[in-house]
Amino acid sequence: MATQWVYSFGEGKADGHAGMKNLLGGKGVGLAGMTGLGLPVPPGFTLTTEVCTAFYANNREYPPGLKEQVEAAVALLEKRSGKIFGDAANPLLVSVRSGARASMPGMMDTVLNLGLNDETVEGLKTGSGDARFACDSYRRFIQMYSNVVLGVEHHHFEEILEDHKKTSGLILDTDLKAENWQEVIADYKKAVQRHAGKPFPQDVHEQLWGAIGAVFGSWMNQRAITYRRLNNIPADWGTAVNVQSMVFGNMGQDCATGVAFTRNPSTGENHFYGEYLVNAQGEDVVAGIRTPQNLTRAAREEAGAKLPSMEEAMPEVFKQLAAVREKLETHGRDMQDIEFTVERGRLYVLQTRAGKRTARAALKIAVDMVGEGLITQKEAVGRVDAASLDQLLHPTLDPRAVRNVIAKGLPASPGAASGQVVFNADAAEDLAARGVPVILCRVETSPEDIHGMHAAKGIVTSRGGMTSHAAVVARGMGRACVAGAGSLHIDDEKQSMRVGGTVVKAGDTLTIDGGAGEIMLGAVPTVQPGLSGDFATLMGWADALRRMKVRANAETPRDVRTARRFGAEGIGLCRTEHMFFDAERIIAVREMIVAGDEDGRRKALARIAPMQKNDFAELFRIMDGLPVTIRLLDPPLHEFLPKSQEEMAEVARAAGVTLEHVALRARQLHEANPMLGHRGSRLGITCPEIYEMQARAIFEAAGEAQKAGVAVSPEVMLPLIITKKEFTTLKEVIDREAEKARIKTGAKVHYLVGTMIELPRAALLAGKIAEEAEFFSFGTNDLTQSTLGVSRDDAGNFMPDYIRAGIVERDPFASLDPDGVGELVRIACERGRATRPGIKLGICGEHGGDPDSIGFCERVGLDYVSCSPYRVPIARLAAAQAALKGEPLAAKEAAE
Amino acid sequence: MATQWVYSFGEGKADGHAGMKNLLGGKGVGLAGMTGLGLPVPPGFTLTTEVCTAFYANNREYPPGLKEQVEAAVALLEKRSGKIFGDAANPLLVSVRSGARASMPGMMDTVLNLGLNDETVEGLKTGSGDARFACDSYRRFIQMYSNVVLGVEHHHFEEILEDHKKTSGLILDTDLKAENWQEVIADYKKAVQRHAGKPFPQDVHEQLWGAIGAVFGSWMNQRAITYRRLNNIPADWGTAVNVQSMVFGNMGQDCATGVAFTRNPSTGENHFYGEYLVNAQGEDVVAGIRTPQNLTRAAREEAGAKLPSMEEAMPEVFKQLAAVREKLETHGRDMQDIEFTVERGRLYVLQTRAGKRTARAALKIAVDMVGEGLITQKEAVGRVDAASLDQLLHPTLDPRAVRNVIAKGLPASPGAASGQVVFNADAAEDLAARGVPVILCRVETSPEDIHGMHAAKGIVTSRGGMTSHAAVVARGMGRACVAGAGSLHIDDEKQSMRVGGTVVKAGDTLTIDGGAGEIMLGAVPTVQPGLSGDFATLMGWADALRRMKVRANAETPRDVRTARRFGAEGIGLCRTEHMFFDAERIIAVREMIVAGDEDGRRKALARIAPMQKNDFAELFRIMDGLPVTIRLLDPPLHEFLPKSQEEMAEVARAAGVTLEHVALRARQLHEANPMLGHRGSRLGITCPEIYEMQARAIFEAAGEAQKAGVAVSPEVMLPLIITKKEFTTLKEVIDREAEKARIKTGAKVHYLVGTMIELPRAALLAGKIAEEAEFFSFGTNDLTQSTLGVSRDDAGNFMPDYIRAGIVERDPFASLDPDGVGELVRIACERGRATRPGIKLGICGEHGGDPDSIGFCERVGLDYVSCSPYRVPIARLAAAQAALKGEPLAAKEAAE
Repeated sequence: MATQWVYSFGEGKADGHAGMKNLLGGKGVGLAGMTGLGLPVPPGFTLTTEVCTAFYANNREYPPGLKEQVEAAVALLEKRSGKIFGDAANPLLVSVRSGARASMPGMMDTVLNLGLNDETVEGLKTGSGDARFACDSYRRFIQMYSNVVLGVEHHHFEEILEDHKKTSGLILDTDLKAENWQEVIADYKKAVQRHAGKPFPQDVHEQLWGAIGAVFGSWMNQRAITYRRLNNIPADWGTAVNVQSMVFGNMGQDCATGVAFTRNPSTGENHFYGEYLVNAQGEDVVAGIRTPQNLTRAAREEAGAKLPSMEEAMPEVFKQLAAVREKLETHGRDMQDIEFTVERGRLYVLQTRAGKRTARAALKIAVDMVGEGLITQKEAVGRVDAASLDQLLHPTLDPRAVRNVIAKGLPASPGAASGQVVFNADAAEDLAARGVPVILCRVETSPEDIHGMHAAKGIVTSRGGMTSHAAVVARGMGRACVAGAGSLHIDDEKQSMRVGGTVVKAGDTLTIDGGAGEIMLGAVPTVQPGLSGDFATLMGWADALRRMKVRANAETPRDVRTARRFGAEGIGLCRTEHMFFDAERIIAVREMIVAGDEDGRRKALARIAPMQKNDFAELFRIMDGLPVTIRLLDPPLHEFLPKSQEEMAEVARAAGVTLEHVALRARQLHEANPMLGHRGSRLGITCPEIYEMQARAIFEAAGEAQKAGVAVSPEVMLPLIITKKEFTTLKEVIDREAEKARIKTGAKVHYLVGTMIELPRAALLAGKIAEEAEFFSFGTNDLTQSTLGVSRDDAGNFMPDYIRAGIVERDPFASLDPDGVGELVRIACERGRATRPGIKLGICGEHGGDPDSIGFCERVGLDYVSCSPYRVPIARLAAAQAALKGEPLAAKEAAE
Repeated sequence: MATQWVYSFGEGKADGHAGMKNLLGGKGVGLAGMTGLGLPVPPGFTLTTEVCTAFYANNREYPPGLKEQVEAAVALLEKRSGKIFGDAANPLLVSVRSGARASMPGMMDTVLNLGLNDETVEGLKTGSGDARFACDSYRRFIQMYSNVVLGVEHHHFEEILEDHKKTSGLILDTDLKAENWQEVIADYKKAVQRHAGKPFPQDVHEQLWGAIGAVFGSWMNQRAITYRRLNNIPADWGTAVNVQSMVFGNMGQDCATGVAFTRNPSTGENHFYGEYLVNAQGEDVVAGIRTPQNLTRAAREEAGAKLPSMEEAMPEVFKQLAAVREKLETHGRDMQDIEFTVERGRLYVLQTRAGKRTARAALKIAVDMVGEGLITQKEAVGRVDAASLDQLLHPTLDPRAVRNVIAKGLPASPGAASGQVVFNADAAEDLAARGVPVILCRVETSPEDIHGMHAAKGIVTSRGGMTSHAAVVARGMGRACVAGAGSLHIDDEKQSMRVGGTVVKAGDTLTIDGGAGEIMLGAVPTVQPGLSGDFATLMGWADALRRMKVRANAETPRDVRTARRFGAEGIGLCRTEHMFFDAERIIAVREMIVAGDEDGRRKALARIAPMQKNDFAELFRIMDGLPVTIRLLDPPLHEFLPKSQEEMAEVARAAGVTLEHVALRARQLHEANPMLGHRGSRLGITCPEIYEMQARAIFEAAGEAQKAGVAVSPEVMLPLIITKKEFTTLKEVIDREAEKARIKTGAKVHYLVGTMIELPRAALLAGKIAEEAEFFSFGTNDLTQSTLGVSRDDAGNFMPDYIRAGIVERDPFASLDPDGVGELVRIACERGRATRPGIKLGICGEHGGDPDSIGFCERVGLDYVSCSPYRVPIARLAAAQAALKGEPLAAKEAAE
């Protein structure tokens, strides 16, 4: 049997059906489906995506048989529409549109009103009884066709039109009468001859093939290529082409066009929602020249609008539309976005598809539809975009407010915030202590700024990427952050910053939108979205479906409480170094560092120890028996050192040494590449007294808590391990301190000792390391840095170029690189499990909160993901969705 | 059959034979072998290494049957020696010594003169006719046994002896008479009772078992454990114990003891060589109290010594010894190191083993023995330690000169050099230009110091490791270098450095020994070892045996010529950035960098282009058709930027911009972790004009050379690739320039385009990258840094601790880490070959000159190694040795 290249639809019959999306494209399958459902769809036919593929495979030639099949389809269409293509008396007009498998809105070409020429326009005049309408349609067709098919630029036509208006003394397009349009059409045709080098085609079949070729051709235009790359759409999918009988919503007052949503896409409420315009074409709705009218009376009344709703103006047609709504939602089992046209009192449905919606609406619709028995809980969980939940977890700017945007940067941490500008962390803390909201602006932040970041409502940096220190910490704290706003010139000394001609001084008010990466002058009002009951319901379903646990990266009591509130089932990463930056203890920490010998370090550590112990005690209290993974000190010591002369002098005084000595130590500790330097377990090996102190603090706190009746489950984690021997050497230190604490507190605490896998060697040697390590936690931030050889602090200089050029598909710090970093994770999981079958596996890099990366984690079978507290709900939902995709059969599903 | 735990030897018969080294240990198998050869070996027996293993496996208990076998062996020994163990009249005395498979000199315990007690000492007096000798032997035995077996510290015995001398008014040990020794013995025994808590054992069997236990026990002493770790000797090998009848070289003028080498271990000459002492014990030779006498008359005459040679003093015994020499060398097929004793005119051979030798001697012996038909060429190639060739390729300090060492550092680049101290590169260049030899002293060096390093005879740094910039560059240039001499405090401003109390000023003379890591005050004379004909002969054999090619890492004409002289078969790494630092062009390079836009960069590049082209032209001329791998610009741009205000001002003037602009660019380009920053191919992607200029220079130079009749074989190499797309994007640039040059020069140059594999992701994705890349060169320096997460510039702060603690076995920058980095290399080779079976594979990291790493390269089947010019001969020999080990059967051997 010859290949069927063309699928017709009309009169309640369709060659295609709902299962043919890959072949017919999204639009084509929708038209076939609706026709099959008996909905009033203008008849037409679809050239399949296989035609497109064959076209490109065969040097832009159509496959044999296509021409004949199109001719047959046109004949059938003439029969179904009762009109004749190219007939002067009763002409058939068609639209020619693209329609790929995945929606690519506006990326490809469309031609409307095809079939008009100098003869058929007369038939249209007669048929419509409206000469002006017919002429306007013809000139629109010439303009659109000549642009799309013949490559004549728009401005040539616009100039002709403007000239005509000027010479005729007319202002609006609607002021032009039929005779004016006749003249315009004559000039348009001359322009086509001039710019295209040939006359505008009068042969309607030539028009049709021209338009079909242009639509297939537009699959490979630059815009479409870029869009596909950004959205991971393969080029070999191809597009279909839909040829459909034209209907007109602009033939008089009994005509209309509109868009309807089966439910409210903004709130999710189960109300029919939409807009329409009387006597208009689809483009008019989009163009926004006329104000559309409400669909329903209720909506009109609520809006206090004067113009009648469709329900009131066209009650019969509205009833038909309401029936279409019912049918489409029941059939599509999702909220639909419907395009319709009313021609002379008759309803036509032109398109239907799942409607875009806000996160809030998505939640409500999903939960409601389960209540209505329309979808299952599993389907509901799959319907909500996990990443979009972010919108619900942070305050956002009032969408109605005016924004005076002075600079843009990266949307580093969502949420909106207004406050007074400060340029250093201490000022932020001071002002915040007096109740003043502040925005901390820095060139870039460092661990020393953490108290200021905590105190601030929002953070702005002029340097750094999506995973710069500022971005990571801000996301962790749930602070709004715009990072890497390169046009800002921050001058710390002058306490001001300049952007273009604007100067912003300390004390001025700024607003930032961390979700949009915008920085605005003045205060912009914000709204605080509440977590509705739907949120809790859906998360409950998600929790029941997922296999992986979700933990949080947190260490301060405030963040740990937030994490639990958001549903964290443990702490996956407590960064003990964050506890070192507290103002009280940083001096002791610095004394330890400048000491330069073990004795001096031990003295300073003795002062830090009780504070660390209290930190851990509180952590155990809050987590109440849930596992708490505590990473021992990780950053290089020089990160804690003071930079300014003043601070150095302060440390020198406190430590009883000279300023020169402090400066010398700072120089000694300086590193060319601190990321690859003397940090992590390397500190534990060279200065075992530091890890000893930390282990003692952990186990004394745990023992005392247990004695007092609090369940504890500490997991001690070693950072930056590369050999088994390194691990065993440090595990001995930990076990020794655990034993000492057991004797001291009288409580035997159950604990695990494990390691981060954050360097390629650790991943490769995972089999050896697992002989001793009881758990692995993938530190995919550092693993990405080392595997790709990319420092996240420096990536800003080239990563944007790389993403733009498609050399890397996504920022590897935002979404886990599955081929490089992912392969190492897979290798480590395999080898770790081969040695220790039950080894606990988790991830604690930033990727733990990214839905795609969570999908990867499910596929390699990790036991948990850990992310910043504010991303815990996202991770819970993404984990459930990943389990539903269930490549390694999810345990919970199997048990059902 | 019961396990044989004990192997006897004596009277020309031995239970063991030469194949039993693992069982009998090195000493035991030597004794058995010599006995079997009919040499005069004192009889005895060996407890096997399996006894040791069983002992430790079974909680330090001996295996059943051992006691009976030892008793039987003692009985046989009594029979063979004609003496009775513990007999008061004719006592058998024995030595008890360790003997592992691998030599562990001085690490384990030994007991001599065992079998003496209050009764048998009388028999020894009678038998020897020398009461003083007998008493002295007894007191030595008490002292040694009590120390080794009973744990009584030496100083207790030394104090007793000193007291005796004082009260008796005697000064030297030799002044003591038999009666004095009797008193000393009485006090020794009291001391044993006091400190060991029990009397000195009089039962000779108890003595024997005590000594055997102590020797087995010493296998696990800390010293031995550390030695094994450093030398990769497994603990489960165990040691054997040798019990052997004592012979005495100190019983009178017809007695002697000595050490002989079958050839001269220093020069390799085929002369009998050695020393002996009349009336002495082995320890006396070692102690160096008496000056030993020459073995042969010729040696005595050459040395102008007065005391007679053994040949003259004991002509008969000497003849026997010369016969032993013949027999042992013929049998051992290598130069032997023989220990002998003459007791009452009778020769005993106590030990033989392959003798240690200098590199020069090793070469000569190996080549001579082939000439003598004693060994094959293959064996000769295997006999010379490849790394030791380094001694022959650099000037060395005159070994007879006095060294006033003021500081020690790492032996970063071998060779010796004297010169005036300078503290900056410009001064080095100025002085050197006036013919003054200089030593450049820096805290650390950077690429900007290269001209100074070139000008200097030697380089000293106070910071940095074996692979710091200074070390790597110095080795590459063949300059002597002592790196990381931490005790030096260099003060650039004062133009002086301090070490302890010594201050060294600019202009003072220093000498450095780069092979020993020593820094000396003043000029120490050096000697220039010539490359003898033996060197050429052996290298010729090696070249015929090896499978891998050897290339050099070089770019300056001088280094490239050196490389060819040393036998390089191509350039494996031409670092084009080194060509950027030339004084003439650095200004243009800096202009390019500060330009900040493409246009400005192009202008500056146009000035650099002709110079680069000339560089390449000369390279092609020198290499004359051999492959030349040219790596495009690799380091981050900021490495080229000036640091001082003055230099910045100079650049600003040259580029016509403000000083502020230059400072701003420097700040913009600053990176937190430059190793993981905007460098390598990332520069090629963001600033394609740089690679365009370099490619154009390469292909125009190559085309013109070819046109002029010079064969050229350029291989263009992209650094720091992590994705295939990155590679193809840049390969297009290169191919385009090649095509342009073809048109311009009219010569079609054959070339390859390939990539460094120097990041884990590149290794993992090697299969994809090989779809486009025509060769891989493993950049194992960077691959080590990224795989281990260790910056070589910062490793100095913890790597020494790691090596000391055995956490890493060897500096991973000196010798390739086979488990981590090596696994990635293996993966990349496999995947690369799977995609492109014939893909050319090489290594161009520092490891390319390390014999162990070269062995690894052979095993994974690389096509070539590339190393610094001065290591080319080492690599040639190591490659041949690796091929001989031939795990993947070496092609040349199979063809033979």
